[in-house]
Amino acid sequence: MPFDARNDLPETPALVLDESVVQANIDRLQAHCDARGVRLRPHIKTHKIPRFALAQVAAGAAGITCQKIGEAEVMADAGLDDILITYNIVGAEKCARLRRLSDRLRHLAVTVDSAATVDGLSAAFETAERPLVVLVECDTGAGRCGVQSPEEAAALAARIEAAPGLSYGGLMTFPAVGDLDGVARFMRRALELVAERGLSCREVSSGGTPDMWKSGEDDFVTEYRAGTYIFNDRSLVNRGTVPLEACAARVHATVVSAPTPTRLVVDAGSKVLTTDLFGQTGHGTVIGHPEADVVGLSEEHGVIHLPKDHGLAVGDRVEIVPNHICVVVNMFDEIFLRRTDGTLETVPVAARGKVT
Amino acid sequence: MPFDARNDLPETPALVLDESVVQANIDRLQAHCDARGVRLRPHIKTHKIPRFALAQVAAGAAGITCQKIGEAEVMADAGLDDILITYNIVGAEKCARLRRLSDRLRHLAVTVDSAATVDGLSAAFETAERPLVVLVECDTGAGRCGVQSPEEAAALAARIEAAPGLSYGGLMTFPAVGDLDGVARFMRRALELVAERGLSCREVSSGGTPDMWKSGEDDFVTEYRAGTYIFNDRSLVNRGTVPLEACAARVHATVVSAPTPTRLVVDAGSKVLTTDLFGQTGHGTVIGHPEADVVGLSEEHGVIHLPKDHGLAVGDRVEIVPNHICVVVNMFDEIFLRRTDGTLETVPVAARGKVT
Repeated sequence: MPFDARNDLPETPALVLDESVVQANIDRLQAHCDARGVRLRPHIKTHKIPRFALAQVAAGAAGITCQKIGEAEVMADAGLDDILITYNIVGAEKCARLRRLSDRLRHLAVTVDSAATVDGLSAAFETAERPLVVLVECDTGAGRCGVQSPEEAAALAARIEAAPGLSYGGLMTFPAVGDLDGVARFMRRALELVAERGLSCREVSSGGTPDMWKSGEDDFVTEYRAGTYIFNDRSLVNRGTVPLEACAARVHATVVSAPTPTRLVVDAGSKVLTTDLFGQTGHGTVIGHPEADVVGLSEEHGVIHLPKDHGLAVGDRVEIVPNHICVVVNMFDEIFLRRTDGTLETVPVAARGKVT
Repeated sequence: MPFDARNDLPETPALVLDESVVQANIDRLQAHCDARGVRLRPHIKTHKIPRFALAQVAAGAAGITCQKIGEAEVMADAGLDDILITYNIVGAEKCARLRRLSDRLRHLAVTVDSAATVDGLSAAFETAERPLVVLVECDTGAGRCGVQSPEEAAALAARIEAAPGLSYGGLMTFPAVGDLDGVARFMRRALELVAERGLSCREVSSGGTPDMWKSGEDDFVTEYRAGTYIFNDRSLVNRGTVPLEACAARVHATVVSAPTPTRLVVDAGSKVLTTDLFGQTGHGTVIGHPEADVVGLSEEHGVIHLPKDHGLAVGDRVEIVPNHICVVVNMFDEIFLRRTDGTLETVPVAARGKVT
C-alpha cells in the first residue's frame, strides 16, 4: 500500500527503511565479494523479508543463509531455492520438516557440530532421493557452537560422508570479531586433516558483518555470510565499520511526554527497540540530536535525556537508529519502505517470529 | 488444538504456561485486593491474551489496563468493556482511533501529563456523546512520564475538567519500586490541591507487581494495576516477591550443542528470551539445574555454562524461567497452555506486536 511520505507518515512507533540505502548496501558488499572472488550468501535473519532476499540474489548472491527452518520455509515459498541453515537441526520432528523442505529446493545445506546431530539427520534423509549437504561448524573462538579442534572437525566430516542420506559439504565458522588470524590457523589445519582423510571441502563458509570488508583476504574461504550489512545499525557505526548515512533503518517515534526540561519520553520502548545494548551505551542514536541520550527503556516508553532548550515538544517525531537492527526488525509485523520516489510502502516481515 | 502433553510436546523453543499456576496467581492477588478494599485492574501487557483478561475479570477484577490502543482494540473485540490506557495518547490519528474505541466500550479512561495531550484529546472528543475519562499521571520518583509536582497535578486536573469532551477522572502513578512513603507524600498533597479546586478524584490508581502485597496499605489508593503477577518471573523470585513455584511460564528449549564438557547451547536466544536482564545476572533459571548459568544469548542460541557431569546431552529438553516474562510472551505468536488434565492447548498471543 503506497502512500504519500509527507502527508501520511505512519503511526508511531514504526520502522522506516530507505530503499536507496538498502540497495546501495547490497551492491557495495556484493561488489567487494565479487572483486575478492568469494561468494556472498547473505543471512536473512536481519530482514526476514523475501523481497530483500530476492534483491540480494538479483545482485549476485550465491543463495541465502537462514537460522531456523521456519525462516527457510518462508523464503522457499517466495522462490528462494538455495539455502544454507547454519544451525544444528535436532529432533525427529524438525529433521522430518527439514526433509520436506529439502524436497522443495534446488540446494539445501545445514551445519552440525556433533555425532548425535549427524545421526539424527541421517535417519531422516537415508531414504531421500538426494543427500542432504552437511557442513561441520568450527568454534574458532566465538565460544558458541562448533567443534573445538581441527581434529574433531575432520572426524565429524568423515562421519557425515559415511552417513546414509548425507553428503559432506565443507566447513563453516562464525568467527569471533577481530581475530581473523586465529580463525585462519584453525581452519587451515582442519582443511589439511580433512584432506588427509580423502575428503574435499566444497565450501568453507565464514561470516559476520563487522569484518565484512576483510572477507576474501583468506584464500581458503569460498563463501561469506553477512546479515546486518543490508541495513546496518548503531553498533556498526560505533565500531567504525560504516558511516551513519549507511544505516537504512530508523525507528520513528513520537514525543509523548516532556516531564522536565531535560527529559523526554517517546513511544518506542523495549517492545520496539529491544534492550539489546550490543556493546553500546544507551539505546540508540537520535538523528539530528547528537546530544540526546536514550538512557532507559520500559516496555512502551523510551526515556531520553537532553540538555535544556533542545527544541523538542510533545507531539514531535524523532528518528532513532537502533543498536542492533536484526532484533528490532523482528519486533514488527510490518515495516515501511521509503522508495526512491519518496512514497512509503508497507511490507510485511514475513519470517518474523519463526522461532522453530 | 489440544494434544497429549507427554507424547506431543511442542517443538522448541516454546513458551509453556501452567494453567493451574496462572489461576492460583490470579486468585491470590484478587483475594488480597478484595481483603484490602482496593479494586484490582490487571495490566494485560504481560499476557496479551483475551482469555486471561476474561479470567481476571471473572475472578473479580474491576476492568483491565492496557498500554497501547492496539492492545485495547484486541481486548474490546473479546468483550472486555472497561479499559484504562495508562498512556499519553498523542496525535490526531491516534486520538481519532481512541474515540472510535470509546464508542464501543462501557468505560474508557486514559492518562495524561501535559496540557498539549489534554488539548489533543479534547479536540477529538468535543463532539462525543460521552466524555472521555482522563486521569493525571504523577511522577512520584520513577523518572518516566508524569507531572513533577502536586501543584502541576492539580492544575492539569482543572484543565481536563474544563476541556470540552473530557471528564477529570483522578490521579495515576507508576511508583518507583520500594519507595511507597515518597509516593504517598506526593499523592496525598496532590489530592489536597485537587480538592481545593473543587474537584474529586474518582480513582487514585497505583500499581506494580513487586510491591503488590503492599497494595491497599494506603487508604487513598482506590485501584491497583499489576501485570506480571499473573505469570511471575525470575526477577520476582530474585526480589523475594514470589517463590519459583509461582512462575507459571517456562521457555522449553532443546540442547543443540555440547561443544565442551562445561558448555551447552540451547535453541532459545535473544529472539525468544530477549536480552532483558531486568536487574539480574544471567538470562534465566534452568529448572532442575540450579548450577546452570545462562551466560549469553545470540539471536537463536542460548549459551549455558555448567559444572562437568551435568547429565545433559544434545537432544535433551530444558525448561527456563525467564528474567522478564512480559517481553518474552511478546516474542511468540502463540503459547502453549498446560491444562489441569495435563493436555496442552495452543493459544494465540492475540495482542502481540500491537505497537501502536
